[in-house]
Amino acid sequence: MSTGAMALIHDDRLFPADPTMRNIARRLYAEVRDLPLICPHGHTQASWFANDEAFPDPAKLFVQPDHYIFRMLYSQGITMEELEIGAGEMKDPRRVWRIFAENYYLFRGTPTRMWLDYSFHELFGLDERLSGATADLYYDVIAERLKTPEFRPRALYERFRIEVLATTDTPLDSLAAHQAIRDSGWKARGVDPRIVPAFRPDSVVDPEFAGFAENLAKLGQMTGEDTGTWKGYLRALEKARARFKALGCTSTDHGHPTALTADLPVAEASALYDAVRLGRADARQQELFRAQMLTEMARMSVEDGLVMQLHPGSFRNHNRKIYERYGRDVGADIPVATDYVHALHPLLARFGNEKNFTMILFTLDETTYTRELAPLAGHYPCLRLGPPWWFHDSPEGMLRFREQVTETAGFYNTVGFNDDTRAFLSIPARHDVARRIDCVWLARLVAEHRLDEDEAVEVAHDLAYNLVRKAYKL
Amino acid sequence: MSTGAMALIHDDRLFPADPTMRNIARRLYAEVRDLPLICPHGHTQASWFANDEAFPDPAKLFVQPDHYIFRMLYSQGITMEELEIGAGEMKDPRRVWRIFAENYYLFRGTPTRMWLDYSFHELFGLDERLSGATADLYYDVIAERLKTPEFRPRALYERFRIEVLATTDTPLDSLAAHQAIRDSGWKARGVDPRIVPAFRPDSVVDPEFAGFAENLAKLGQMTGEDTGTWKGYLRALEKARARFKALGCTSTDHGHPTALTADLPVAEASALYDAVRLGRADARQQELFRAQMLTEMARMSVEDGLVMQLHPGSFRNHNRKIYERYGRDVGADIPVATDYVHALHPLLARFGNEKNFTMILFTLDETTYTRELAPLAGHYPCLRLGPPWWFHDSPEGMLRFREQVTETAGFYNTVGFNDDTRAFLSIPARHDVARRIDCVWLARLVAEHRLDEDEAVEVAHDLAYNLVRKAYKL
Amino acid sequence: MSTGAMALIHDDRLFPADPTMRNIARRLYAEVRDLPLICPHGHTQASWFANDEAFPDPAKLFVQPDHYIFRMLYSQGITMEELEIGAGEMKDPRRVWRIFAENYYLFRGTPTRMWLDYSFHELFGLDERLSGATADLYYDVIAERLKTPEFRPRALYERFRIEVLATTDTPLDSLAAHQAIRDSGWKARGVDPRIVPAFRPDSVVDPEFAGFAENLAKLGQMTGEDTGTWKGYLRALEKARARFKALGCTSTDHGHPTALTADLPVAEASALYDAVRLGRADARQQELFRAQMLTEMARMSVEDGLVMQLHPGSFRNHNRKIYERYGRDVGADIPVATDYVHALHPLLARFGNEKNFTMILFTLDETTYTRELAPLAGHYPCLRLGPPWWFHDSPEGMLRFREQVTETAGFYNTVGFNDDTRAFLSIPARHDVARRIDCVWLARLVAEHRLDEDEAVEVAHDLAYNLVRKAYKL
Repeated sequence: MSTGAMALIHDDRLFPADPTMRNIARRLYAEVRDLPLICPHGHTQASWFANDEAFPDPAKLFVQPDHYIFRMLYSQGITMEELEIGAGEMKDPRRVWRIFAENYYLFRGTPTRMWLDYSFHELFGLDERLSGATADLYYDVIAERLKTPEFRPRALYERFRIEVLATTDTPLDSLAAHQAIRDSGWKARGVDPRIVPAFRPDSVVDPEFAGFAENLAKLGQMTGEDTGTWKGYLRALEKARARFKALGCTSTDHGHPTALTADLPVAEASALYDAVRLGRADARQQELFRAQMLTEMARMSVEDGLVMQLHPGSFRNHNRKIYERYGRDVGADIPVATDYVHALHPLLARFGNEKNFTMILFTLDETTYTRELAPLAGHYPCLRLGPPWWFHDSPEGMLRFREQVTETAGFYNTVGFNDDTRAFLSIPARHDVARRIDCVWLARLVAEHRLDEDEAVEVAHDLAYNLVRKAYKL
Repeated sequence: MSTGAMALIHDDRLFPADPTMRNIARRLYAEVRDLPLICPHGHTQASWFANDEAFPDPAKLFVQPDHYIFRMLYSQGITMEELEIGAGEMKDPRRVWRIFAENYYLFRGTPTRMWLDYSFHELFGLDERLSGATADLYYDVIAERLKTPEFRPRALYERFRIEVLATTDTPLDSLAAHQAIRDSGWKARGVDPRIVPAFRPDSVVDPEFAGFAENLAKLGQMTGEDTGTWKGYLRALEKARARFKALGCTSTDHGHPTALTADLPVAEASALYDAVRLGRADARQQELFRAQMLTEMARMSVEDGLVMQLHPGSFRNHNRKIYERYGRDVGADIPVATDYVHALHPLLARFGNEKNFTMILFTLDETTYTRELAPLAGHYPCLRLGPPWWFHDSPEGMLRFREQVTETAGFYNTVGFNDDTRAFLSIPARHDVARRIDCVWLARLVAEHRLDEDEAVEVAHDLAYNLVRKAYKL
Repeated sequence: MSTGAMALIHDDRLFPADPTMRNIARRLYAEVRDLPLICPHGHTQASWFANDEAFPDPAKLFVQPDHYIFRMLYSQGITMEELEIGAGEMKDPRRVWRIFAENYYLFRGTPTRMWLDYSFHELFGLDERLSGATADLYYDVIAERLKTPEFRPRALYERFRIEVLATTDTPLDSLAAHQAIRDSGWKARGVDPRIVPAFRPDSVVDPEFAGFAENLAKLGQMTGEDTGTWKGYLRALEKARARFKALGCTSTDHGHPTALTADLPVAEASALYDAVRLGRADARQQELFRAQMLTEMARMSVEDGLVMQLHPGSFRNHNRKIYERYGRDVGADIPVATDYVHALHPLLARFGNEKNFTMILFTLDETTYTRELAPLAGHYPCLRLGPPWWFHDSPEGMLRFREQVTETAGFYNTVGFNDDTRAFLSIPARHDVARRIDCVWLARLVAEHRLDEDEAVEVAHDLAYNLVRKAYKL
């Protein structure tokens, strides 16, 4: 082979070099490698599985939708135009693919490189490193395979051994695609597939969301409630949640700028709602409204049992020019320092000790692992810690998470892995990295005589499979 | 053995798997394993040693007083009632013990597990893992042993090879138990035991402390000073410190919410004292008063030589319902982001270069290790860094401390280990973990040819024994 | 040898103990060990090379100018007077050297120890550890060698294989020494030496800088512009930059307290300039002026191509008494928490997507690596990450940098190493540490099958040589 000293992926990848630890890690990984995938949080589209159409060409599949990829290329001076980002139809996908291939060396040391190599090798049988020299070979092989029935969404869902897959949906979504999947009669490996929505209400709880007032009106129409009043608005949200729940939804998801919560008297909350509804609220009031809505969502979760996920701490659309031209979610969201201890106090004072309440906390500020999140989750019965998220779902990020939260929160206040991706083909690769890294961490505990190997086997199963099912009530 | 692949504790526990590093770590540890214990900061009770009564049953000894244990159980949905937390007499300690045993798997990967296994094995000769299956065996063995003379406080003090043990005491304490120990004629391994108080004045310097006004009055009575005036109040504190010093005290301890210090003109300080004393101070003034009192305490330390310890950065009693029902110190204190550089500036501007002054800084915010604490301690002659504290006294926490402060502050601006515990039986286990981890860090430096082994031996001795004696003037 | 089990420096120093990783690290390091040094950021003096005079005695060379050394000694109670810090002529340099030698154990585990041992061994052939016992031997050997022609600045420049060396200079500097080097006809290993200035305008852009008003006047005189107006002031700065550029300068350097930037309308900026110029600005306005000036400097960089370096986050002269007696840069600068995401937004909104603009970010707050800096540099085409700086240029600091930024920013948004030192003799040692640590990190990636070794070789070359040339346009 001309392009490197190893095959594209190695059986021992990510395992420590030390032979004692590597052998333990291998044994643990062998126990969990083939467990089904539980995907409780992600950004795949239900319509893919409803329609079951072939994925498009390699550039459209891998480059255009993946902001991990094109932000790195952009950071090195390749323009969005060259990559045809935002273009509905791509003019020259092979050219875009070649640019990507020639610059693939930029991803050295990144998780994106690992996920891609895994997909290239495991799904497409490619074995030479991607580069300018192999760009066309890759393009042709991938394009060819994408046309085959084995590469349709449903076939891949089955091949990936997915047991549950949650999408992320606005309350304004009809969920018709989810219904269509149910109605289709498709059996995945002999059983009903479990593709469920997650309730993500940003569009109707965040006053800064584009079209907020229209969204409220639409929510009112969809639910038959008067969203012109605080009470009607809350009832509308309750009904929307019930509709999601009827289609298998078990969780909500909240992507606020901060973790701020509030617990206002009803009259104040009602007046605040009027202000944001009518566009009369300033930035402080908008933030306070989001804060109040987290507590309202917690109250509804106590009532309807939906698990609440909180993903705070991102400065969205930081690059003004890129946002003005290309809109949201194009790689210019940047984490900021995040406080949980003061911010969550109002919500936890009210619901922190409730039996039927689970709140899963995520962070983009790793300094909170030892300082805030592990101590909070190591005390409050409602709290669990979500896995390393977004910028931090790398091998090092996952190790930092385990090394920093286990001592205080243990393993059992964590909830397994979220792939959290738009890139459907990367899902097995992402779970594989997570399973390997958890086994690496456990192998170290065993090698250092801090855990018996029989216990580590049990924990590895729990981290790969049991904890996520339990935490998300799946 | 049926419960696991290893004995309860392994001779090489915590040592790295790599044979080169493990062998160096073993050699270094052999040099320090049996050194006497210096315990300059903790929460044992002098009355235990004055009265020398048997410890109660296993649940009362291990579960009820240890918030590391019951906060983890609580976080997983076990109620405080089930654990009989706060109950004076326990109704069914064996039942509490069984709940603990059945949930012992929750502590996998935590330092609590290591401390407990060490105690179970070393003190009680237990060799099967604690679980539901072994709960009663454990209960019976421990209960039996606790009745024997070898398990009385004084016998354990001797067995643990404790050389100095500091308790933590309010200025309102009569220190009668300390006096009683002195008067008792007890010789520990042939010499007078050294159980000394530490001066912890929260109750009389923190306006938010329960009963602050009454505490000031009592302080006045105890010292014969008029605490109705700023001058009298300061004299009262000076006298209280002198009383502690007479019983062997060498240090003070300050657990403020932040590290804020102030250096107000006398007239301002005096007026502020009147405001807090009369309950007229708002939150900002209360914080400013605590800030001023740190500087006053530093001034007294310059005069009387007591070493000053500062432990800031905890949001106390975060769980409101638990606090209202069970009071302080039940596992709901959560760390917050902490600033030292601006906060300590007033105090350091005044006393930072004093010869006869030592201030030991602790943190719950590990981000300050490289950014603030090591640079401060690597410059100011009065400053030393306390060991990883509370949530951070885990193997990983201790390694992070050494890996992050050594480069800037070296070893000699640190002060050895604090066990900081209410759990007397865990003291040897805690020191053992600290000694092992320091040897692991030194072994890495030696293996990477950054330190000669003869130097590492010297440093290991200093970290385990010499530095703590010197820093605390013991 | 009586003082230790190893020679002063070991061929495998800093390499991991694990044989697999060590062997890979050795092979990678062999590829880059002898590459020329590129030194784009430091604090050597052009006059050394213009005059080429012998360096003074050991104490004056190693102890007096190096705040890494004397702050550690000061932190342990050795006075500035004993070390003759600030003294023009040293009264007893041998005595100062002995104090240093007797306290050399304080540097165990610090990078200073590694740099010094490297210099002692490689330059002076010393092979016994420095201590009280070897103090005089060291003093005599070093003093003797410093008198020889091989130890003159130009000879060392050649011996160190320096290819480019940037000094750091104020716009008020005549740059006569740089001109003198050019005029001298000196050839370094057969070619013109490349010793270039870097444009550090603190003295004329920071209203809190000593003599700010006089500095503005002098800047006006030197450039023939009217610095009494905003427009004239900006033109003066542009001319000063052009003068630097003519002598080979390719970069500017900005050491602000924070990373705050602003983009004010011209009228506001002009009025603000009047306020700071006339000494009428308060602290907030002074900060705003610095913020505005960063954006002005960025604008000039877009125009003239000078690479912009930003080094924020230090609380300067924290120790008031030391500052009043000894002035700036004597070891009492302490890092503080630093925000980039909000602070840089105004500048990046204006110039973040410019083709001809490079801004290199440094930090003293490592929490920003994963949270802010890697995400920013992994998106904005103008941004690159400077190497670990100041307190963080230790082996652990360098590893933390790679472990935390690579996953998001990759290798190619970083810029190689800066030695950033006043200590000319330590330059090769510092580059050697950086090259070794980068090889350690790459060796781990190779050993864990995350990178092929042929790729690692290429990256090692890039990190040691190519990236710094490209980023600094050298």
